[in-house]
Amino acid sequence: MKPYVLGIDIGGTNTVFGLVDTRGKVIASSSIKTAKHSKFADYLDELYTEASRLIEIADAVDKVHGIGIGAPNANYYTGSIEDGVNLPWPSPIPLAQLVSEKFGIPTAVTNDANAAALGEMTYGAARGMRDFIMITLGTGVGSGIVINGQVVYGHDGFAGELGHVIVKRNNGRLCGCGRTGCLEAYCSATGVARSAREFLEIRTEPSLLRNLPVDQITSKDVYDAAMQGDQLAKDVFTYTGTILGEALADMMVFSSPQAFILFGGLAKSGELLMKPLREAMDKNMMNVFKGKAKVLLSELKEADAAVLGASALGWEAKPSPAQAAVAAAVTSAAE
Amino acid sequence: MKPYVLGIDIGGTNTVFGLVDTRGKVIASSSIKTAKHSKFADYLDELYTEASRLIEIADAVDKVHGIGIGAPNANYYTGSIEDGVNLPWPSPIPLAQLVSEKFGIPTAVTNDANAAALGEMTYGAARGMRDFIMITLGTGVGSGIVINGQVVYGHDGFAGELGHVIVKRNNGRLCGCGRTGCLEAYCSATGVARSAREFLEIRTEPSLLRNLPVDQITSKDVYDAAMQGDQLAKDVFTYTGTILGEALADMMVFSSPQAFILFGGLAKSGELLMKPLREAMDKNMMNVFKGKAKVLLSELKEADAAVLGASALGWEAKPSPAQAAVAAAVTSAAE
Repeated sequence: MKPYVLGIDIGGTNTVFGLVDTRGKVIASSSIKTAKHSKFADYLDELYTEASRLIEIADAVDKVHGIGIGAPNANYYTGSIEDGVNLPWPSPIPLAQLVSEKFGIPTAVTNDANAAALGEMTYGAARGMRDFIMITLGTGVGSGIVINGQVVYGHDGFAGELGHVIVKRNNGRLCGCGRTGCLEAYCSATGVARSAREFLEIRTEPSLLRNLPVDQITSKDVYDAAMQGDQLAKDVFTYTGTILGEALADMMVFSSPQAFILFGGLAKSGELLMKPLREAMDKNMMNVFKGKAKVLLSELKEADAAVLGASALGWEAKPSPAQAAVAAAVTSAAE
Repeated sequence: MKPYVLGIDIGGTNTVFGLVDTRGKVIASSSIKTAKHSKFADYLDELYTEASRLIEIADAVDKVHGIGIGAPNANYYTGSIEDGVNLPWPSPIPLAQLVSEKFGIPTAVTNDANAAALGEMTYGAARGMRDFIMITLGTGVGSGIVINGQVVYGHDGFAGELGHVIVKRNNGRLCGCGRTGCLEAYCSATGVARSAREFLEIRTEPSLLRNLPVDQITSKDVYDAAMQGDQLAKDVFTYTGTILGEALADMMVFSSPQAFILFGGLAKSGELLMKPLREAMDKNMMNVFKGKAKVLLSELKEADAAVLGASALGWEAKPSPAQAAVAAAVTSAAE
């Protein structure tokens, strides 16, 4: 097997890509602006030029086994971005096919949270685990579910949207998905900021957060205030951790994972979040599962995580029929 | 491969067993009383005697490929009944090992709901499906989850307890599992009866159900009253179907199944249950999944379903190391 994979993480702002070896070391990485080109073909040209340069400099020409791509709403089965809400190009985009043809390298795609789960399983906190659930706590809440060592894609490729389980059935907050009461509306970074605004409005006590323009409060502001001992800010984290812990206890009855692995800015809130999370999870856990699932933090460096996650998929990428035919011809010519 | 499997369904009252062919036809079946013997060894003796008689009469001696057993809280990985709450013997019981040694036939065990899912996949409404969720609506609510064509057992063998997702986070009903607000407390046959009692207490309108002793009302009584046009009884089914539909929409974001398959007495309530169920499921479904999952009824005859489900597992049963050694010796002696 060729010794490298190319991981590409397509975000709304930046596209980060890197060359990764079998040990999970990022040999070289770079990035381009996702939104610079209004045509996907132009974007792909720039990506190809820049990634090829990276591959050349790293002396890895003809040594790349596969390309793995993580992108919003990318579908593993079809290889396409089906609904690229945060991307500048019309969807669907047959991403795996176009990239694979451009580079002449087998390519597989999935969404960012599934890529994160694969990265964690291949190089991080879930090494050796066959059953775990990755929860990404960022602007939204994403998830990647692994059962029997396989990412769960569901019958249509869209499974694993645990940010959209309903945690408040009545009078829940409006979620970006158009429904109300989703986990994401409470336990994402934006959810934490929303909770802070709600608490400030409902409660009358003093709080450091009252010094900030209320519509500009971020989860980082809430964290900073809590670390300075601000009770209202601490209560926001207790509220957030409790809802997340209750939700994890509910997920447990589905697939009984060995561990939940948390990733993203909010996951680094330490005991502010983890203490109420563990308490709520234990309290709400069905007896048969009590004490069984660990709650772990990602072991991937944040700067590398997106590329590592995407790259892990590169090891599974299969040649397209056309590529397989070329490879067979080359092999038989060499014999 | 030998042409038959023996399916055994161990219930609290009866143990039903039958010989099943590759087409899913129950060739012969019989039953014994589960609770007759206080010692498991005596129970196993009777089961062996009766099942052996069945096998002989059906001319199937040496033609049984495997034995599959469905039993409460039976664990596929360990082969044991870990906590046989409704059974007369102390647990754990190393069921697969004891039955396999007694019969000299490879044996596998799982819980009843997983057996039902296997039965449906092998012989019923889920033939050809690789991703579906079986929901059994009986005294309790059980579930068997199939992803990528495999039953989900989780890291410990206890996954798939969807009767115990929390559907009422606050002031929920007490559930048999010791927690409150579980799906099972609302959408089982006993849940329907509880809802009827609640409605009768809270509401003042006349109802046919008021002619019955309130503590003896069953889900069947509620069904009969509803079929006679009783509004309160109809509302109980609307309430039940709505909660179940909301819960199915939430399960969808986990594994995106092709279908939910309903089994059990309550599943036969027709449009009384199905109409509010479909409406609540559609209304609460995340956009990306809208209209994708079917809600189907089991296609297994109720009298045969438990045996068929258990028998399906018999096709997967692997010989124990001792059995494999004997088989190898026999094969080499025959050569």
